Amino acid sequence: MKRKVYLDDLPWEEALEKYLTYLEGIGALQPGRPESITVEEALGRVTAAPVYARISSPHYHASAMDGMAVKSADTYGASETNPKHLNVGQEAVQVDTGDPLPTGCDAVIMIEDVHFVTPEVIEIIQAAHPWQHIRMVGEDVVATEMILPANQLIRPVDIGAALAGGVPNIFVHPKPKIAILPTGTELVQPGTELKPGDIIEYNSRLLGATVKQWGAIPMRREITIDNFKSLQEVVSAAADEADIVLINAGSSAGSEDFTSDVIGSLGKVLVHGVATRPGKPVILGEVHGKPVVGVPGYPVSGIIVLEELVKPVLDRLLKREREVAESVCVKMGRRYVSSLKYREFVRATLGFDAEGSLTAVPIQAGAGVITSLTKADCILDVPQNSEGYEAGERAHVRLLKPIDRIARTVRILGSHDPLIDEAADELRRADIRTYVSSAHVGSMGAILALSRGEGQLGGVHLLDETDGSYNTSYVERFIPDGGVALIECVRRAQGLIVAKGNPLGIQTVADLAKPGVRYANRQRGAGTRVLLDYLLRQEGVSPQEIAGYDREELTHTAVAAQITAGSADCGLGILSAARMYDLDFVPVCEETYDLLVSLSAMESPQVRAFLRVLGSESFLFRLDALGGYSYDKPGRIKKIWPEKQQES
Amino acid sequence: MKRKVYLDDLPWEEALEKYLTYLEGIGALQPGRPESITVEEALGRVTAAPVYARISSPHYHASAMDGMAVKSADTYGASETNPKHLNVGQEAVQVDTGDPLPTGCDAVIMIEDVHFVTPEVIEIIQAAHPWQHIRMVGEDVVATEMILPANQLIRPVDIGAALAGGVPNIFVHPKPKIAILPTGTELVQPGTELKPGDIIEYNSRLLGATVKQWGAIPMRREITIDNFKSLQEVVSAAADEADIVLINAGSSAGSEDFTSDVIGSLGKVLVHGVATRPGKPVILGEVHGKPVVGVPGYPVSGIIVLEELVKPVLDRLLKREREVAESVCVKMGRRYVSSLKYREFVRATLGFDAEGSLTAVPIQAGAGVITSLTKADCILDVPQNSEGYEAGERAHVRLLKPIDRIARTVRILGSHDPLIDEAADELRRADIRTYVSSAHVGSMGAILALSRGEGQLGGVHLLDETDGSYNTSYVERFIPDGGVALIECVRRAQGLIVAKGNPLGIQTVADLAKPGVRYANRQRGAGTRVLLDYLLRQEGVSPQEIAGYDREELTHTAVAAQITAGSADCGLGILSAARMYDLDFVPVCEETYDLLVSLSAMESPQVRAFLRVLGSESFLFRLDALGGYSYDKPGRIKKIWPEKQQES
Repeated sequence: MKRKVYLDDLPWEEALEKYLTYLEGIGALQPGRPESITVEEALGRVTAAPVYARISSPHYHASAMDGMAVKSADTYGASETNPKHLNVGQEAVQVDTGDPLPTGCDAVIMIEDVHFVTPEVIEIIQAAHPWQHIRMVGEDVVATEMILPANQLIRPVDIGAALAGGVPNIFVHPKPKIAILPTGTELVQPGTELKPGDIIEYNSRLLGATVKQWGAIPMRREITIDNFKSLQEVVSAAADEADIVLINAGSSAGSEDFTSDVIGSLGKVLVHGVATRPGKPVILGEVHGKPVVGVPGYPVSGIIVLEELVKPVLDRLLKREREVAESVCVKMGRRYVSSLKYREFVRATLGFDAEGSLTAVPIQAGAGVITSLTKADCILDVPQNSEGYEAGERAHVRLLKPIDRIARTVRILGSHDPLIDEAADELRRADIRTYVSSAHVGSMGAILALSRGEGQLGGVHLLDETDGSYNTSYVERFIPDGGVALIECVRRAQGLIVAKGNPLGIQTVADLAKPGVRYANRQRGAGTRVLLDYLLRQEGVSPQEIAGYDREELTHTAVAAQITAGSADCGLGILSAARMYDLDFVPVCEETYDLLVSLSAMESPQVRAFLRVLGSESFLFRLDALGGYSYDKPGRIKKIWPEKQQES
Repeated sequence: MKRKVYLDDLPWEEALEKYLTYLEGIGALQPGRPESITVEEALGRVTAAPVYARISSPHYHASAMDGMAVKSADTYGASETNPKHLNVGQEAVQVDTGDPLPTGCDAVIMIEDVHFVTPEVIEIIQAAHPWQHIRMVGEDVVATEMILPANQLIRPVDIGAALAGGVPNIFVHPKPKIAILPTGTELVQPGTELKPGDIIEYNSRLLGATVKQWGAIPMRREITIDNFKSLQEVVSAAADEADIVLINAGSSAGSEDFTSDVIGSLGKVLVHGVATRPGKPVILGEVHGKPVVGVPGYPVSGIIVLEELVKPVLDRLLKREREVAESVCVKMGRRYVSSLKYREFVRATLGFDAEGSLTAVPIQAGAGVITSLTKADCILDVPQNSEGYEAGERAHVRLLKPIDRIARTVRILGSHDPLIDEAADELRRADIRTYVSSAHVGSMGAILALSRGEGQLGGVHLLDETDGSYNTSYVERFIPDGGVALIECVRRAQGLIVAKGNPLGIQTVADLAKPGVRYANRQRGAGTRVLLDYLLRQEGVSPQEIAGYDREELTHTAVAAQITAGSADCGLGILSAARMYDLDFVPVCEETYDLLVSLSAMESPQVRAFLRVLGSESFLFRLDALGGYSYDKPGRIKKIWPEKQQES
């Protein structure tokens, strides 16, 4: 297998500059031949030429009021003591707003200021000055004047102004056509029955929707298998038809070198590899005079490459200035270590900490994890040559959401239970201005986060082995300063989740030590792991005896997914997760699942609304449908630990 | 004629609240029946139900690297001093990124860390720990977890996440259909040959583009003539088909009462008239359970009503939170007097004054002037019960453009010449990040604005009668503190613009006093008016002798437009304006047209770029095409008046 091991390592700015300069030089950044379209359909398009008014608006002297049109000279001298009479039809003509001014008239008197002596005679008590209450020809638009310059984005008001100026059609820059070529033998279309190794080809839809949002026309092609000749043909045809070609490499690294060779064989490779992370293995090339970009296969890398390297090309083709996302200075909620070699674009969530500072927490996920993009509130842009940031340091981020929306977000950090998702959905149904963000960090994660002033609330189900109680002793031990409350939520069945029919006949935790049983564990700090350890000690089983004890999953459903996938035989978890996956469930015990909330968060209307949802009928209905829960009064405060004053 | 003279005068907030409460009560704010669409076409739509993952992503344990899949236990103890050998195909299986993990393997070793002793045997010098370089099932999406809650706007990344979770179709709220009914016997379609009194029906396109931008489907109807029965039929049919009906009243006030009666006859009128300006005569009603809004005929009023009263209804139908435009605090550049009776939405331009303060200047134009909306940078929201603002006071405005774009705008305030538009277009062609805003305030307007620190540059052509010089003596007299420079621009032919064939045989300014000659004058402070007054004195003609001396137009082209319209016979102006309108021109003299620029503005790269354009070949080519100009070195500095230090 031929491998090109060394990629370029150009700084991103240099790579972009080099690429744009080259494309400029070969004339590849010129917009296409202007398109003539009706003004009505021009919303969001960009003018290719100035638009001049063909007619004036108004195109005649128009009455600006309902009233009587008169010759101002006829009204001179009129006053309360010396009213003037005018004959209707001769000296005064009735007009409505917008009516043309009758010949000879040069003023309009408002109907409210007119007294009809008889239907034929009006009396006025004030002189009209010339041109009063008249919209003169060209008051709005004067024929021949420029209404819109070239290269202007057309808004609804521009459509109105052009039509007012008598312009029915205008020239606009054509929407750039962007061909998107998914490549990879392992790719299958969405909806296909999957076998191991198949990868759902969603990248082309993700990239397509992204460029569509930017005003281009995505041309999504069929999947090309990993074959030099096939790819060569497809790229050549696409470069003839489209304005930009994106080759999406699939996730196989082999195919990337392939892409580079194909571009090189048909045209020129300008850059292969930039010093950014993610997005490093990008290819910037040209085929038949068109920009051709090799977009890395991981979705996060792909989006970064589109935003940072493809959008600038598109903006040039659309003669549009580059929009810059709003950048703000935030406090780092966690340490982030960055490589000196790369400029890094780090997805992060935002929240306000207990002191009210806007705080960013980087999302720990690889470039293959698209949900890290759906969950991100901002992008932390770490310069090359930076070692990153310490917790508490200041850093700049590009906002993906308005700050006021972040302020309206309930931030849940804790133990996972599907009921959290259901409550979040109920909350958004009740108030669309409220958002929910949740991260699965386990029960201890919730306790530690709240002790640090991060997050607002979190699910906890931590068993105290000494007395069989839940949660309170942990709070007292780990949050000695207080400032939190425990909110009643549910009791739920914990048990052993096993494959349908329980083929290995697992009945107790002792069975987990049997040979051939592969266990899927939860991460350290998860309440379910604490429970497992407790049960193992009770049964006298050592963790070393259990195959898979070191294998950590973050949620109950992830454990169930492993069992469904056949890569584990058993895991401790809750009934609702087993039910969702149609797996069997051997009940072990019932545990208490509470919500720990910081007292400062309870002042937030969003958090209060979330707690109210827990007691609502519609939520309890959904809880019953999930199964495995019992409850008394969800949402009720169980215990408050007031904040302790710092000793001085 | 039946007139409903008294409208309601409800404060806007009350009117909206009353309307939404009523509509809520009759169930008219519920989104329509959810629509099932493919995820791929869901961009910009809003979820009607939560989206749950059907499969995990990855749905199998996948190699995260190119390398060799191994059983980690087989590698324990490997080190540089104690390398381990593994048989390819049995103990080590070659995998590419994304390949499924072969059965029995639980780790991947990167290809870079593998040494091939022979093609069949590899050597490793480090142990692999379990699950290294493996993307576990569900790393990204875990089957059954909620990917998107209900009522969420769908972004490209959401499309990717849903497809990754194996979801091919989703339920979204239907796009609300908004019927737009233009009414008025005086309305004609764009492109129609116009006669006086005809009004181009562009409002429905303006309103249509606006609601389209907001995510609705505009359903534009044919023009309905002013007839109760016809309108009743159209409204009734529209209310059956659409989710919201907008009746656009035309500009006749009669038709408004008509609209109210029609709504009343078919359903209910909730509000008729709100205490806002513009937008007062709005009608909020209901027909067949659907919101029906009578939108005032003036375009500015119409847009205000859409933004303030229709969009909140639309947002509810789309289960979308209301976006709030960015609001900033600015300095008032001029006094603005507001009525205590109305909440006013005042269009204004923004600029940075000489001290660097963001300063708003209200645009003086009626609600019929759509170009006041195309030119506006912000909306000044003056509360009811406010008397307005003094110049220099602070006020809040809603931005219509990003502030950084305002900083990149060249602000031209001065005498009008079509060459300004041409230069502006050239500038934007050269750099799309530069914007130009121009206001026609005449030569003296430019001088006074610059003396106050407003605006950056302006055209001036002021004749000093004492010595025949231009501009310098005015600058010295009116800007004694200096801080400005005069930039050479052009000399241009001034003359008498007359109808084609010069039917009245006008040859000199003395002819303007002849009976039957209707003159179109320029506004006070315009250089052309100064010139006229000078010429009249030379000829011994008094202004009182000239019919139309008091009739003021703001531009040369506006004067030409009046003559074309037949409402004036003659005006003093420049050749290019006469040419644009295909009118005859009797040359009178050649005058100097300079640009006056503030020295602080000359530090702005945008202003310098504008001045450079004046000397460019492409601009001079356009100048020649306009006609009537001669020039030497446009863009050259003629004279600088340094800023005088304040005496202490």
